[in-house]
Amino acid sequence: MTASPALAPVLARIDDQIVAATERLMALLRIPSISTDPAYKADCEAAADWLVDDLASFGLAASKRPTPGHPMVVAHGEGTGPHLLLYGHYDVQPVDPLTLWDRDPFDPAVEETPYGKVIRARGAADDKGQLMTFVEAMRAWVAVHGSLPVRASVFLEGEEESGSPSLVPFLETHADELRADLAMICDTGMFDRETPAITTMLRGLVGEEVTIHAADKDLHSGMFGGIAQNPIRVLARILAALHDDQGRVTLPGFYDGVPELPEEVRAQWEGLGFDAAAFLGGVGLSQPAGEAGRSGLEMIWSRPTCEINGITGGYTGAGFKTVLPAQASAKVSFRLVGRQDPQAVRAAFRAHVRARLPPDCRAEFAEHGASPASVMTIDDPAFEAARQALSAEWPRPAAFIGSGGSIPVAGYFKTVLGMESMLIGFGRDDDRIHSPNEKYDMEAFHKGIRSWARILDALASR
Amino acid sequence: MTASPALAPVLARIDDQIVAATERLMALLRIPSISTDPAYKADCEAAADWLVDDLASFGLAASKRPTPGHPMVVAHGEGTGPHLLLYGHYDVQPVDPLTLWDRDPFDPAVEETPYGKVIRARGAADDKGQLMTFVEAMRAWVAVHGSLPVRASVFLEGEEESGSPSLVPFLETHADELRADLAMICDTGMFDRETPAITTMLRGLVGEEVTIHAADKDLHSGMFGGIAQNPIRVLARILAALHDDQGRVTLPGFYDGVPELPEEVRAQWEGLGFDAAAFLGGVGLSQPAGEAGRSGLEMIWSRPTCEINGITGGYTGAGFKTVLPAQASAKVSFRLVGRQDPQAVRAAFRAHVRARLPPDCRAEFAEHGASPASVMTIDDPAFEAARQALSAEWPRPAAFIGSGGSIPVAGYFKTVLGMESMLIGFGRDDDRIHSPNEKYDMEAFHKGIRSWARILDALASR
Repeated sequence: MTASPALAPVLARIDDQIVAATERLMALLRIPSISTDPAYKADCEAAADWLVDDLASFGLAASKRPTPGHPMVVAHGEGTGPHLLLYGHYDVQPVDPLTLWDRDPFDPAVEETPYGKVIRARGAADDKGQLMTFVEAMRAWVAVHGSLPVRASVFLEGEEESGSPSLVPFLETHADELRADLAMICDTGMFDRETPAITTMLRGLVGEEVTIHAADKDLHSGMFGGIAQNPIRVLARILAALHDDQGRVTLPGFYDGVPELPEEVRAQWEGLGFDAAAFLGGVGLSQPAGEAGRSGLEMIWSRPTCEINGITGGYTGAGFKTVLPAQASAKVSFRLVGRQDPQAVRAAFRAHVRARLPPDCRAEFAEHGASPASVMTIDDPAFEAARQALSAEWPRPAAFIGSGGSIPVAGYFKTVLGMESMLIGFGRDDDRIHSPNEKYDMEAFHKGIRSWARILDALASR
Repeated sequence: MTASPALAPVLARIDDQIVAATERLMALLRIPSISTDPAYKADCEAAADWLVDDLASFGLAASKRPTPGHPMVVAHGEGTGPHLLLYGHYDVQPVDPLTLWDRDPFDPAVEETPYGKVIRARGAADDKGQLMTFVEAMRAWVAVHGSLPVRASVFLEGEEESGSPSLVPFLETHADELRADLAMICDTGMFDRETPAITTMLRGLVGEEVTIHAADKDLHSGMFGGIAQNPIRVLARILAALHDDQGRVTLPGFYDGVPELPEEVRAQWEGLGFDAAAFLGGVGLSQPAGEAGRSGLEMIWSRPTCEINGITGGYTGAGFKTVLPAQASAKVSFRLVGRQDPQAVRAAFRAHVRARLPPDCRAEFAEHGASPASVMTIDDPAFEAARQALSAEWPRPAAFIGSGGSIPVAGYFKTVLGMESMLIGFGRDDDRIHSPNEKYDMEAFHKGIRSWARILDALASR
């Protein structure tokens, strides 16, 4: 399969317009659209408005759609050939601790680094930079040829980082409008700096917040220490009991539905030459810390996990305060694989907590999203066509890989709309997504736009 | 032993001047002298200045003494008879969480409650209201008789709530000035609402802060979850292992130097009719949660403890963030009894942490004070004289009791100055010291002043 003659001028147009494309991305990055914090609600609206205007500026029929939470952005472009639904999310993670940022997270800049130019800002890689790769590719096709090579719709979400509470209801009520031949999701990464990837295996996610309550007020540890329950101590015992000494999660039934890796997949992954020490070395670690007897790629791609993402209780300021707090809380998440049932995992966690509550303590729970794992069906020849288009842009051939992160929308596209998804993105392991000093490589942005131009061409030609 | 004829007009003067005395206390309570937080350094200075002015206003030779931390206030009053050193502290605990206060903690007010009038403010009971009881008693003696019934010095500290880092060096360099026949420390409580107390057994305190470091930055739990160390999980396992299932502290050697309660003391305590369920019921609890097989009073007075006073790590804001944090930390304190060695306990704790560190993790420690337990020698007849003076003021006879809290200064008066201490205070269990909505009963303040007038008279007459 070769590229159509229409592709070359589109790639030239992308190269010619990369400065303007970068400026557009930076304008979007200046909007602090943190979805999980209600203080940024107006900013999420502003980001949606900006995207509607931008998509309309090159002829798409774009509109903002209200939800009980943050709005969706939907746009439709005319074209022949297969109908693609291109998905991204305009919301971003919180930025704390702000003190660890080298610059204002919402004042983006292009910086020179030893590894090339990067765009530094919250959301640069997750996911504003990524979603703008397909937007810019579409803009270039329209600019050069007056139309898109395929029929393409754009669907942008504003609640991906906060559990997507409005997503399923929105898909259900807009099923006919959003159902396409294939969804293209741009929220994943490359395998390494030279190897592009189509992600075909995604972990699911269950988020839980548990608060242990004991006394009805904070107590003085001198007066009450030794006789009153300490909710931090209770919480520590509950959390410590979530894993055994082999690193396995102890919840009864947790591994129900967790498949062993097929031998052919294991062989393909071994061929990727993943270097766990190098992967961990990039963040100051050296040894895989997961389940005993599992490979590094299994730990991050195909094994379920339980992680404590946050904990707080008592006095946490400077100095010391001899307080016995009234409560302590933790945020706990589970990455799911195979056919693990999110609701069963949630129920098992809550039972684990309740079974370990001493007298005078009670547990309060809050739910933060639940999505099953996804395993893509790659029989559709579009997958191989896209893989070849990606391979033409980058130094090494594209790989089908797994991903430790959760992209719940892929599962919902399947279950609600009956639509398969192809996950292609250009993030890199050192992008610091969800961390201070997030960045997106200029190379990822530029070659990412070119990659989408190639993929649209390849899928139009199939 | 009966009161001298000089006492009655002093008590009358106190009753007559209680409104003015309350206004003076409220002026002191308006100064937010939080010693542990550097942001309040100027306020600590202001509180010391206020006290110097107030002590000088009735003729004491008062001055502010600089230290590397917050200043000491020292004042001397002439008189015959024994030389007493009256101790209190003008610094207060932090006020967070501020949202749980019903009023500005530094805008004191006298409030009517079902249990009588209270003075509501941070520091009302701990320790500004208490130290003003002996200041007001001295003021009344001078107003009525032109002099004190004993030779009395006042020594007020501004770092009691932050580990007293300047205390020992100050005592060492001012030993001749501060050494008296007996120290009177006003920072403890009554046994119950009707029973005044002289505290003769005090727990010591060791404060430790431990931070577990893993990766060199916060990580995304999707990308790194399952392969990277999670410092919150490591910390939870370390903290959960500090106690066994019987509620005993697991540190090797922790119980070295912990005496069993003498039978006569146990009998006396049983006679006090302590009701653990009622004590706990006041704070929303019902069952003693300490070491199995120990009485409630043992748990709070004579057994050592380990408590987690604060914990923090990862994302603790609203919503959810799937972060694997770079670090997590906890503040841990130990209440010591008998001859437990604070430095040995600190070393055992650090060894416990280090022994449980997995690869790629390191522990950082910070020290927050260390003081041994104190057991007073009550052979001095001044103890019985003071007990009788207290008994004359209150509905029930005064008791010699233990205290779960730590008053390290009593130990230092003994070890540095060779001086015994008598601990008398009027705090009550529901004073909410170190908690939101701290208060001091007007009855405690008024009868506390009268109690000190009686004690000064009793000790002058002995």
